[in-house]
Amino acid sequence: MDSRRNFIKKVVAVGTLASAGVSLPSILPAAPPKGKASLNLSFQEGIAPGNSLNEKLDYMENLGIVGLEPGGGNLAKRVNEIQQALKGRNIKVSAICAGFSGWLIAEDPEKRKQCMESTREILTAGSELGSVGMILVPGFNGQQPSLQMPKAREILLEQLAELAEFAKKHNTAVILEPLNRGEAWFLRLLADAAAMCREINSPGLTCLGDFWHMTHEETSDRGAFISAGKYLGYVHMASRKRRSMPGEDGEADNYIDGFKGLKEIGYQGYVSFECGTKGKREETVPAAVKLLREQWKKA
Amino acid sequence: MDSRRNFIKKVVAVGTLASAGVSLPSILPAAPPKGKASLNLSFQEGIAPGNSLNEKLDYMENLGIVGLEPGGGNLAKRVNEIQQALKGRNIKVSAICAGFSGWLIAEDPEKRKQCMESTREILTAGSELGSVGMILVPGFNGQQPSLQMPKAREILLEQLAELAEFAKKHNTAVILEPLNRGEAWFLRLLADAAAMCREINSPGLTCLGDFWHMTHEETSDRGAFISAGKYLGYVHMASRKRRSMPGEDGEADNYIDGFKGLKEIGYQGYVSFECGTKGKREETVPAAVKLLREQWKKA
Repeated sequence: MDSRRNFIKKVVAVGTLASAGVSLPSILPAAPPKGKASLNLSFQEGIAPGNSLNEKLDYMENLGIVGLEPGGGNLAKRVNEIQQALKGRNIKVSAICAGFSGWLIAEDPEKRKQCMESTREILTAGSELGSVGMILVPGFNGQQPSLQMPKAREILLEQLAELAEFAKKHNTAVILEPLNRGEAWFLRLLADAAAMCREINSPGLTCLGDFWHMTHEETSDRGAFISAGKYLGYVHMASRKRRSMPGEDGEADNYIDGFKGLKEIGYQGYVSFECGTKGKREETVPAAVKLLREQWKKA
Repeated sequence: MDSRRNFIKKVVAVGTLASAGVSLPSILPAAPPKGKASLNLSFQEGIAPGNSLNEKLDYMENLGIVGLEPGGGNLAKRVNEIQQALKGRNIKVSAICAGFSGWLIAEDPEKRKQCMESTREILTAGSELGSVGMILVPGFNGQQPSLQMPKAREILLEQLAELAEFAKKHNTAVILEPLNRGEAWFLRLLADAAAMCREINSPGLTCLGDFWHMTHEETSDRGAFISAGKYLGYVHMASRKRRSMPGEDGEADNYIDGFKGLKEIGYQGYVSFECGTKGKREETVPAAVKLLREQWKKA
């Protein structure tokens, strides 16, 4: 989504990050089921038809959508607006989509500081909104120069430890999102993100499975979700060929195997739409919701 | 194992590899089960007690071990010796462990050519021995300078396509092995290796799950094997804390979750010991075999 690249340009200084060596993670047992899984659908702000946030929320409520995923850009100034719009509704803020500036695997320490500081700001605002977390990408391909492996991972994990601690204190989380290699080579697989969560071992750090990116990077949706296990904090949804509404790509839009994985790990978080549409929104959106509910039942 | 780093020093010229852009892989459905899984145990040459290959094979036969995994170093000159030693026995060559020179993600094209040529030689010898494949690591951390992502993956996949075609013609395969980040940052996860196999889409390319490396990199043994699915060509076995014989690390040596994954994907390949021992080989080896058979039954 374009909003992810509309980085806040503000530069704020934070403490210097000490570099430490790679250490192998502690070995934890496979994730136990969290309980009975449920399909809690959420929309980004652009998904529902409507000319205002309230119109969109009315539409969502009629469809039984229970989550709203606002962008992180300028979020601190929107807290009151969003709180007012959600008042008395059966919709909560799900997660906050990115909006940070800089990036955590930047070669330039100043860019990393920008990311730390802007992430803290968004986490704080997201916390006021009761969000489960803020979605973060460690570095897009276009963000250069970036650190290379294994240094990139070392520096990233130091920063994630700090952010997870901060997020935990605010009852929210940083949600690591693997993307496909066309967008971000550094983090592409759920198992990789989950291993970072295992290392940090804090409720302040979770990971995200996005069916769009998973289509290109994962060989098994179910295997990927089982690997994410208890670290899975969020799911993004889109059609599998063009990132449109689920169903717009016909038979390719089969999520049953992935839903089986979500049920198996007892996932109770949100499944949130991040996609465009090639059709009329008034038709494609309800059709997508219907399709997902049917597939969830079959899974 | 040390043998992996005893690279043949020979330099051989092969055709220049053209560089091509990254393309997203074709989307294939989740791997179907291959049939009923079975635990086919194999040993590297150093595992069994014995002063000669024949003594070791006698010992292995008594334990019901059905595979022998020789190193790839100097293999062409050992074909006859190994064939003679296996004659009339219920043991086959499982896979060939590395032994190649150069590496496929080297910056220096000459190092890549070395790897291509030496891999072809080992595949040819391994084919004469009826091996299921030759284990290959795209690049160890110590092999520098290496290409960085995403260029490293592009160049690697071009070469793997050539090697897979060559291996297929020889009824064998290149087996990609993910290692832990302390040894090789480039390829660490089964899902990542499996996605490369999906892209090449040839029986000449499979991947390997090594419980030792998986302990450190994967968050779920079962999830990882489900992701590997039909691309899984081989499994390596060791204790989970010190890379000794399974059981030597006590309760940490639990493979049941992984074995469940192998059963689920109908894995019928080898599970081959690649490990040392801290104890007396005559005691630790049979104890490990017993433990694995018990855990396989429980899975």
